[in-house]
Amino acid sequence: MKKQFKYILILLLIYSCGEETPKNTITDVQTVVLLDSPLKSWADGPRTRIMNWIEDITDSTSKNYIPETDRIAVFDNDGTLWPEQPIPNQLKYAIDFVKAESAQHPEWLKDPLLRGFIDNDPEAIKKAGKKGLARIMAVSHSGMSETVFHDHVQQWIDTARDGKFNMRYQELVYQPMLELLEHLKNHGFRNFIVSGGGADFMRVWTEKVYGIPPYQVVGSYAGAKFELKDSTPVIIKLSDDLYVDDKDGKPVAIHRFIGKVPVFCGGNSDGDLAMMQYTAGSKYRSMNLLLHHTDAEREYQYDLKTLSGHLEKALVEARERGWVVVDMKNDFRRIFPFEK
Amino acid sequence: MKKQFKYILILLLIYSCGEETPKNTITDVQTVVLLDSPLKSWADGPRTRIMNWIEDITDSTSKNYIPETDRIAVFDNDGTLWPEQPIPNQLKYAIDFVKAESAQHPEWLKDPLLRGFIDNDPEAIKKAGKKGLARIMAVSHSGMSETVFHDHVQQWIDTARDGKFNMRYQELVYQPMLELLEHLKNHGFRNFIVSGGGADFMRVWTEKVYGIPPYQVVGSYAGAKFELKDSTPVIIKLSDDLYVDDKDGKPVAIHRFIGKVPVFCGGNSDGDLAMMQYTAGSKYRSMNLLLHHTDAEREYQYDLKTLSGHLEKALVEARERGWVVVDMKNDFRRIFPFEK
Repeated sequence: MKKQFKYILILLLIYSCGEETPKNTITDVQTVVLLDSPLKSWADGPRTRIMNWIEDITDSTSKNYIPETDRIAVFDNDGTLWPEQPIPNQLKYAIDFVKAESAQHPEWLKDPLLRGFIDNDPEAIKKAGKKGLARIMAVSHSGMSETVFHDHVQQWIDTARDGKFNMRYQELVYQPMLELLEHLKNHGFRNFIVSGGGADFMRVWTEKVYGIPPYQVVGSYAGAKFELKDSTPVIIKLSDDLYVDDKDGKPVAIHRFIGKVPVFCGGNSDGDLAMMQYTAGSKYRSMNLLLHHTDAEREYQYDLKTLSGHLEKALVEARERGWVVVDMKNDFRRIFPFEK
Repeated sequence: MKKQFKYILILLLIYSCGEETPKNTITDVQTVVLLDSPLKSWADGPRTRIMNWIEDITDSTSKNYIPETDRIAVFDNDGTLWPEQPIPNQLKYAIDFVKAESAQHPEWLKDPLLRGFIDNDPEAIKKAGKKGLARIMAVSHSGMSETVFHDHVQQWIDTARDGKFNMRYQELVYQPMLELLEHLKNHGFRNFIVSGGGADFMRVWTEKVYGIPPYQVVGSYAGAKFELKDSTPVIIKLSDDLYVDDKDGKPVAIHRFIGKVPVFCGGNSDGDLAMMQYTAGSKYRSMNLLLHHTDAEREYQYDLKTLSGHLEKALVEARERGWVVVDMKNDFRRIFPFEK
């Protein structure tokens, strides 16, 4: 945890100091390009393994047949369906939020834990440390109704752009994974996201971007309360009782939210290992797929030294147990939908 | 709460002293009879209101049109989809469980909080009080893997019979509500259970009985932990961090698990009022339906004086706001599938 925290700070420093919001003229809404042939953006190796597995488990004469009601697929989000570098998109949202809203919140300017983020002051961010991170997540994700939060995230996801590709975040999703989601859905699977990211944050856009509705999105969450405000019912987001949907928290959340053991799991980090082990324990012939970020040019290259997506134990276990390890540089023919 | 607790004890006394498990020869599996005409078991009044509403909100030319992705229907379970008298079925399961398992747990016999249940001793149950109820729920619902719990509930639901009708519990579900679930599903709705009952308890049988899969079942839940036991992944059910999915907890759980405001809500008690208010707050033309248990002969008659399903405020508000109030004696032509 400590080591990871160091990286958080280093990367926040890089991020906060260096970046200016880039501007360009791309304004059209992303169209998810689903190519004719299934899994066309995948290299032959992993493509064949996935196709063969699906063929086997959907064949009612196979000993490995899985009835449709048990075809549960779970996917991590950050680093598995969209990038998580240089900092997770949700943290970028939190920083953009406090910057944009600070005029309405003069008390934030007096708060040393928040001030650094508002001013892009690396020294102040460093000093605020872990408490500062918790504070910025709290003020940007609680103390407001679900509707107000939803509208803020919607506005951000529709307009904010990333620093490397100058694309909107919903355009920066992995094309091969979109094809995989579609292919599984076409074969009777129900796709769920099981992510360390905030459930409420993801639910705003997952239906449009991945075709995954809010009730199939499992993520981290905190408390909430129900109120009638002048007879109008509202859900107020709180910051207490945080459930972190990561590591062992993932299979527990699958148990809590889904209630079935998955037969397919996609992930990219040690935070996904427990849910992969859980999936491997299915009574059916299951499949685990682990993305390894190996393409510094077309996306990012990382595993051990990273803020988000530390990959070490899961890679060893995946190789030992024969899970599908995807070398993104070689196995993803195309990474993003916007690529030619 | 105190008043309710008194009823718990009174009813437990009646239950524990009076009842012998009845025996008869009915052994065939329940077949859910879905009649030709939709909502055939409903009287004309509520039937017409439901049909007209569905016609309106599924008509793409109507100003009240609701896109399919937002057609979320939520149903309470105890007293709305199946009976909750004289004590909730899940409590009956807990009592049956400790009785059946006590031979393997000599320590339970020494536990004054549990002993009364095992011996059918009304004085001991009374003395154990609220703590006794919490204890029997804990030992019957935690300290075991999800698989072991699932198998116990499966075995019970397949064999145990209720005391009034001598039917298995999965045969004692409301025929008109089965028709309503089916009719909504056929019109693009996604049906969810949002119940004070335990999620894990319901998920064992809801897919078979109601056609509602585990991931559309929201209920009360407690903590859980993930473990590898000799390399085998298991989820162990714990008794801490109890989330009670009742009253204000229902809209909060809808927010947490479903992430969309329902447009249809079915309930039968004050515990359902908050989720009905939440549903009424939908941006769409929504519908609330409240069952009033008025048939002492064919089912049970209760509202104010009951262990489970206290109905008072919700009935007043439903009448004031013009929600559909179902008088079960007059509005349910048939109550259970097994009736002629």
